Amino acid sequence: MTHEKHMRVCFELAENAIQLGNEPFGAVLVKDDQILFQAENSVNTDNDCTRHAELNLISRASQQLGAGVVAQCWLYTSTEPCAMCSGAIHWANIKGVVYGCPAYKLDEIFGSQTIIPACIEIFARGTKSLPTIGPILEAEAIAIHQHYWPTP
Amino acid sequence: MTHEKHMRVCFELAENAIQLGNEPFGAVLVKDDQILFQAENSVNTDNDCTRHAELNLISRASQQLGAGVVAQCWLYTSTEPCAMCSGAIHWANIKGVVYGCPAYKLDEIFGSQTIIPACIEIFARGTKSLPTIGPILEAEAIAIHQHYWPTP
Repeated sequence: MTHEKHMRVCFELAENAIQLGNEPFGAVLVKDDQILFQAENSVNTDNDCTRHAELNLISRASQQLGAGVVAQCWLYTSTEPCAMCSGAIHWANIKGVVYGCPAYKLDEIFGSQTIIPACIEIFARGTKSLPTIGPILEAEAIAIHQHYWPTP
Repeated sequence: MTHEKHMRVCFELAENAIQLGNEPFGAVLVKDDQILFQAENSVNTDNDCTRHAELNLISRASQQLGAGVVAQCWLYTSTEPCAMCSGAIHWANIKGVVYGCPAYKLDEIFGSQTIIPACIEIFARGTKSLPTIGPILEAEAIAIHQHYWPTP
């Protein structure tokens, strides 16, 4: 239930991103079951392909809360992180990841544009053991993408 | 010779990063043999683990030059990109990567803290063919790290 509560906030952020003209991705940082920080995709409005939800989240939270606080958090995200964001999660020493839509499902929806390997494989090859939990609320997570992306 | 000329600018950026209190990494974007944009690591001074040279480069160049220009560039970097930066390079549709110090050499120097897989493996698993050239001026590239990082 806790996972689902935080995941629904990620979904709200993803829907908000669409309203602002961005792609539907949202993420939050959670410590002691409280959301400390949240972010959404801003690739289109920032004209910057690095502005994924998870990278925005880690970048801004690190600057505003400090690396020590970020390293005590779990990261919840509406979709399994790409290689870029998985790398950022690794460097931030995040405690673990909880995701909604699996990366391979997103691939199926918009036609093989994402980067393989996705987060589980990246983490498995890193030097730290990083737990990954998901999919959570998978059908809802997938539906957000099905409504947004044109059929390939 | 062209590769070496641009790589030496990356080395100068890496040395400049040290002077500012950051880690020794530098990168440039090259189009038609001209450097269009340059960046260095700013992780320490920005209190942000995502501020690697390559990610700074792609983020700022995308915002200031536009994604269309960035996609016409090669990225030169003093050290083989990590998984995070390789993901950013993928999303930016960079034409190719030229690197100095191989990632496995950096691992040896500072003791297995980097992310495996490094860029060549990430790109091989992506949906785009992305050429990677290196190591260029390997001994000089390695020496920068050997002087900077404490012996593990």
